[in-house]
Amino acid sequence: MRASILTIGDELLIGQVLNSNAQWIGSKLTDLGLNVAQQLTVGDNSKAITEALDYLRPRSDVILIGGGLGPTHDDITLEVLSKYLKMPQEYDHDWLAQMTGYFKSRNRPMAESNKKQALLLKGSTRIDNDCGTAAGQYFTSDKVQYFVFPGVPHEMKSMMERFIAPTLQKQLTKTGEHILKQTLLTTGIGESMLAERCDPFVQKIKSMPNVSLSFLPSSILVKLRLQMTATKHEQDTEFDKLIDELKNCCGKDFYGFDPITLEEIVLSKLKAEGATLAIAESCTGGLVTHRLTQVPGASSVLKGTIVPYQTVLKHEELEIPPRTIDTHGVVSEQVAKAMAWAIQKKWSTTYAISTTGYLGPSGGDKFAKVGTICLGFAGPNGMSAKTFYMEANRERAKERAAQAALDLLRRELKS
Amino acid sequence: MRASILTIGDELLIGQVLNSNAQWIGSKLTDLGLNVAQQLTVGDNSKAITEALDYLRPRSDVILIGGGLGPTHDDITLEVLSKYLKMPQEYDHDWLAQMTGYFKSRNRPMAESNKKQALLLKGSTRIDNDCGTAAGQYFTSDKVQYFVFPGVPHEMKSMMERFIAPTLQKQLTKTGEHILKQTLLTTGIGESMLAERCDPFVQKIKSMPNVSLSFLPSSILVKLRLQMTATKHEQDTEFDKLIDELKNCCGKDFYGFDPITLEEIVLSKLKAEGATLAIAESCTGGLVTHRLTQVPGASSVLKGTIVPYQTVLKHEELEIPPRTIDTHGVVSEQVAKAMAWAIQKKWSTTYAISTTGYLGPSGGDKFAKVGTICLGFAGPNGMSAKTFYMEANRERAKERAAQAALDLLRRELKS
Repeated sequence: MRASILTIGDELLIGQVLNSNAQWIGSKLTDLGLNVAQQLTVGDNSKAITEALDYLRPRSDVILIGGGLGPTHDDITLEVLSKYLKMPQEYDHDWLAQMTGYFKSRNRPMAESNKKQALLLKGSTRIDNDCGTAAGQYFTSDKVQYFVFPGVPHEMKSMMERFIAPTLQKQLTKTGEHILKQTLLTTGIGESMLAERCDPFVQKIKSMPNVSLSFLPSSILVKLRLQMTATKHEQDTEFDKLIDELKNCCGKDFYGFDPITLEEIVLSKLKAEGATLAIAESCTGGLVTHRLTQVPGASSVLKGTIVPYQTVLKHEELEIPPRTIDTHGVVSEQVAKAMAWAIQKKWSTTYAISTTGYLGPSGGDKFAKVGTICLGFAGPNGMSAKTFYMEANRERAKERAAQAALDLLRRELKS
Repeated sequence: MRASILTIGDELLIGQVLNSNAQWIGSKLTDLGLNVAQQLTVGDNSKAITEALDYLRPRSDVILIGGGLGPTHDDITLEVLSKYLKMPQEYDHDWLAQMTGYFKSRNRPMAESNKKQALLLKGSTRIDNDCGTAAGQYFTSDKVQYFVFPGVPHEMKSMMERFIAPTLQKQLTKTGEHILKQTLLTTGIGESMLAERCDPFVQKIKSMPNVSLSFLPSSILVKLRLQMTATKHEQDTEFDKLIDELKNCCGKDFYGFDPITLEEIVLSKLKAEGATLAIAESCTGGLVTHRLTQVPGASSVLKGTIVPYQTVLKHEELEIPPRTIDTHGVVSEQVAKAMAWAIQKKWSTTYAISTTGYLGPSGGDKFAKVGTICLGFAGPNGMSAKTFYMEANRERAKERAAQAALDLLRRELKS
């Protein structure tokens, strides 16, 4: 079943408001098993809305229309739909009475302009609005189903949960078709190298028209989304096998299934061990700690962090001998290891990680150029270190360094 | 000039990725003076992209196309454009050489699949990618201008700033009309209170049809965007006067003009004083430090940070007497002040700030409930502290606490 999302509003086009509704609806429809074919945004403009409907109608079994149901002069969605589909508007007197009560209960006068929010297209089903005044509606015209709702996010979400999703769900379960999906998370490997490694898998699924795989790269990870349209429940096992195969292609770069985060993985591994963690992060400037402390309950594992941003604190607080720095440079695996070791001992934790690097734009010395990042690890069985070069700008280099530090810890922790 | 935005990618349709690019581009084009007519998203699908172009072409003078330029099998944007517009693809050998160099400098092998990122449509102008491998391109076909760029946000933004916006700007300035705009940044005050304070100004500009003001609230600040359409250059002085008036309405809650950040303001004030800073942040878990270290050169001011996440480190590292915690609670202004004072003395800095709080979802004690945040400040002339209550979820509470801590420092620093 092909679905299209039409969002209406000048504020969306000019970028004053982020269209988070389109994302939320897209995700909801996909979960239900619909195929979201396109998402279109136009302004509060009769011609543009009409042309949008012309475009979407032949490409959709369901059209979800959000926005333009407010009380002001530029809210014209219903009026345009009425003309376009030749369905007259009429007052829903029951809703009008409820609206009047709504305003009365809030001791606010109801403006004359609000009345139009009780208009429905003749023959449509009202979708109650439990947190606002604009009624939503549902109807079918020329075999296309239409759901019309306000653009206010919580009003839209409530209508989706209470009416729209259940209505669509009922139709879908008839066909027996269901969509299986899983997103694998990888880090520490680039998109193209990962694609090469997964190539045998990609070749294999080419002969399976009901299976698709997408690579979704961001600056710190690559997601692999695997999807299968199944008609029988025996196919669920088949899908699980495919997931395992794909996971094997990813090897140690696989760290979990969406929506888990790397910091959650690391914290749960540490918690399972009853271990504690200390951090000495220099170039990542608090970001590793910030990410870990986003997770509720992080305080049971993370004892604390020091950010020895100026080199003098590396001497004073971590007792890194000046000779080590003079011999190897402050950005070196030796210093990274010494930092991790020092904070592990000082705070008596099971593990420690450290970062030291030149993020740029300036900096660098005879030992390490700008873009060099060294990471250190200390555990009960010894230490390790890693070096990376990143030519990215400061913010992204920092983001990648923090990711690499958390990932180093993940790889060191046997589970 | 009518512009359309076409974003391509399954991940956008199914709601796995929020289409923040569409918002960013919409806002940028509007600022330039273009009329954004529609924004359309389709999947990585040849038929859908072709039909989208059919729909957009007659309705656009400019089409901006983002996404589907990656190295994998589902990146088909260029191939589809080539067929649709009958413009053959050819290798840009210069870009291919640059790409090869890019991989070499990172000591990474270049995958065969990356090569297609150096393909251009015959006759188009290459848009350099200064932070990735996919080249962008610009061409005109049937009087419609096309800009094609990757979907990766920072690569897109860089191409917009360096090439696309200047190219469009040149075409627009011919008309003589120019748009003046300025965005004032405020923090520490809610949108409705700020609106009340600015009401005289809002009333005044009601009689000026060429002037508009928007309130753009987010969870940590409120932006005020003032815009004026000018036809003569004398109006520039008039606009500056309006900015001053609006700034006065904001009082001490005004901290700068977009795009400056609060951390940049604070660091430049400290630098101007030749001062140094130390931080003891507990509940904000590294976020205050992370924000400050996003700014190049932060290391000349910020000596370092300690995150005493477990209470024991507040005793051991900051020598907060157990009695202080027992009497006032670990989340208290007394402890916040003691933390700031201790780290200022320990590391001999000019200033120090601190945070301690219960972010939730669990936590809290007889002294302070979940949502309580205490901030401390220590300077050459003494100490101060502030308490906030936030009912937001953990992530937002942390974000607000970090903002409030930086803002406390800003307000304490006389400039």
